[in-house]
Amino acid sequence: MPIIHVNLGPRRYDIQLHDHAFMQFAPWLASLGAGRLACLIYDEHVAEHAFHLKSAVQRAGFQIHTVQLPAGEEQKCLATLGTLYDALAEMKADRQTFVIALGGGVMGDLAGFAAASFNRGLPLVMVPTTLLAMVDSSVGGKVGINHAAGKNLIGAFHQPRGVWIDPHYLSTLPGREYRSGLAEVVKYGMILDAEFFTWLETYAAAILQQKIEPIKHLVLRSCQLKAQVVEQDEYETQGLRAMLNFGHTFGHAFEKAAGYGKLLHGEAVSIGMVCACRLAHQLGMIGNDITVRLQQLLERFQLPVAVAPEWNQQHLLDAMRHDKKNVAGELRFVLPSRLGEVKAGVKVDEAAVRQILAQRG
Amino acid sequence: MPIIHVNLGPRRYDIQLHDHAFMQFAPWLASLGAGRLACLIYDEHVAEHAFHLKSAVQRAGFQIHTVQLPAGEEQKCLATLGTLYDALAEMKADRQTFVIALGGGVMGDLAGFAAASFNRGLPLVMVPTTLLAMVDSSVGGKVGINHAAGKNLIGAFHQPRGVWIDPHYLSTLPGREYRSGLAEVVKYGMILDAEFFTWLETYAAAILQQKIEPIKHLVLRSCQLKAQVVEQDEYETQGLRAMLNFGHTFGHAFEKAAGYGKLLHGEAVSIGMVCACRLAHQLGMIGNDITVRLQQLLERFQLPVAVAPEWNQQHLLDAMRHDKKNVAGELRFVLPSRLGEVKAGVKVDEAAVRQILAQRG
Repeated sequence: MPIIHVNLGPRRYDIQLHDHAFMQFAPWLASLGAGRLACLIYDEHVAEHAFHLKSAVQRAGFQIHTVQLPAGEEQKCLATLGTLYDALAEMKADRQTFVIALGGGVMGDLAGFAAASFNRGLPLVMVPTTLLAMVDSSVGGKVGINHAAGKNLIGAFHQPRGVWIDPHYLSTLPGREYRSGLAEVVKYGMILDAEFFTWLETYAAAILQQKIEPIKHLVLRSCQLKAQVVEQDEYETQGLRAMLNFGHTFGHAFEKAAGYGKLLHGEAVSIGMVCACRLAHQLGMIGNDITVRLQQLLERFQLPVAVAPEWNQQHLLDAMRHDKKNVAGELRFVLPSRLGEVKAGVKVDEAAVRQILAQRG
Repeated sequence: MPIIHVNLGPRRYDIQLHDHAFMQFAPWLASLGAGRLACLIYDEHVAEHAFHLKSAVQRAGFQIHTVQLPAGEEQKCLATLGTLYDALAEMKADRQTFVIALGGGVMGDLAGFAAASFNRGLPLVMVPTTLLAMVDSSVGGKVGINHAAGKNLIGAFHQPRGVWIDPHYLSTLPGREYRSGLAEVVKYGMILDAEFFTWLETYAAAILQQKIEPIKHLVLRSCQLKAQVVEQDEYETQGLRAMLNFGHTFGHAFEKAAGYGKLLHGEAVSIGMVCACRLAHQLGMIGNDITVRLQQLLERFQLPVAVAPEWNQQHLLDAMRHDKKNVAGELRFVLPSRLGEVKAGVKVDEAAVRQILAQRG
């Protein structure tokens, strides 16, 4: 099965892509140097997957402690983090104790930050169960929790020892969550790989129907592309990693305006990418054809592409000005320069942004 | 004035040693690339120092927010950490906002961890005001908070952008705290530098009287020695950093047995180093002369050297078995092989340890 090497020197690791292969999980864990003691952290939605994984790992001789958490973004808080610290302390986790994060982005971020900070760093393994987590949050080492003032405001860079992707898990994922993940997949085509974008257009129908072969390819290619960026800019200091934020400055503002949880992350990014394309077109950076192709592909994936008229324009602008990645007060965006290429940090006048936000349909 | 370079590649920084020179602080901060916005975190005991530092920095054009916290080890908790996150969010700290930790080890660890985790890492400057913080906790990048199950159980490696040491601050430090810091200074001589140990013996009287010239030398030499170790083992993965734990496996157990705060950290380490020497002598690793010299020097610094008879031996052993740096259940120690040299990870039988713990005077 395909393996992607993430080359980060002393923090290098592999992403394993295995279809319906949880029996191979324990030997792989052992091969990473895991001690006898492990901690499996998961949310209630994937309790069945957790049960199978736990059994398999126990049969291989591991002593595994489990922590089941409620599902939902609101778990990414200091209180739940404290619960995880208590559990790790209780089981006497030491620096050989692997933390296994099973679930979507919330579990990866939360359990990952607990692993990053307990004992100044426990080894971490990511087992993403949503498409979004498979192609985005489980790769790259960003972990963290939310604060009232902003999402992921508290966190760390903590590379996993390995990522285990089993596309079989997607069969139990709600369709809307799956489609939301596709927005991030489309993003990789837009920012880095025109050929991949064309491939997505070609296989859009099969992808929407969740056929396993195209899913495997799109997960593999997305992880490869994200790994390439992360390898060159692990700590977000080179400006390169910023390109992954394409559609996200708009998107974060839309998520906030709609109310977290109302609009899924990928849905917000979908609208955000269309806005970024329109903005680039308005600035003369690209022709209209790219916006049209992007919008058509997203619509085939049944993703939203329009700014809701009820969102307050001033609130949206305020949110974008205070995006974590912006220098205080400025409006800067990642904008396409052609299909498969973007420019990060493009400073834009408020008037131009207002025009995009006012555009309907 | 002396400057020590800590050579950690992209995370390299300088330790500045300036006597009574807070007017030079702001230009130095600016030279590190600090943005206009800074956050000064300090405890009530150093409110006066904070006032002067704040004024100086403001006069230089910085916009500085301050957070005053109660003093004491119990501040190193999740709740106070949350308070700091709130303050940083409130002031809209961005990645150019420097966090200035002013105080002893508690402030450095706590404010340092807030800096490490807010926005996945804000630049940090350490301004230690205790001898212990000057020679130990402010150098090396370890930051964190406590958990009911153990001290510093939650934390990160986050190197500061710079350390500003002003020995003048020591004049307001209680004598007992000053002497406690001397235990860590003696430790550097024991583990790395026999010549420095001899120098401490020679100038013991002047050091005890807090004469400024010997203080400057001992702070400088201690920081140099610690920096050498940290440079070779930044993330405690090479085993080298373990040598800094000399006297600490015993010491942590004594602190716990006495009740945190009753016995100061350096006092516990002082007794712990004597125990480690006796253990090494019992194992035939060193002659008795080293133990005698160590004990005499510590006694000249008015530091305790004896295990209190009321400490429960079984509790001490349990604590040592679960020392964060030990592999679960084993009794391992850093033991001297000669003056200025130690061996880390020496596995010792329980019976031998019991004998040392039973020894009086």
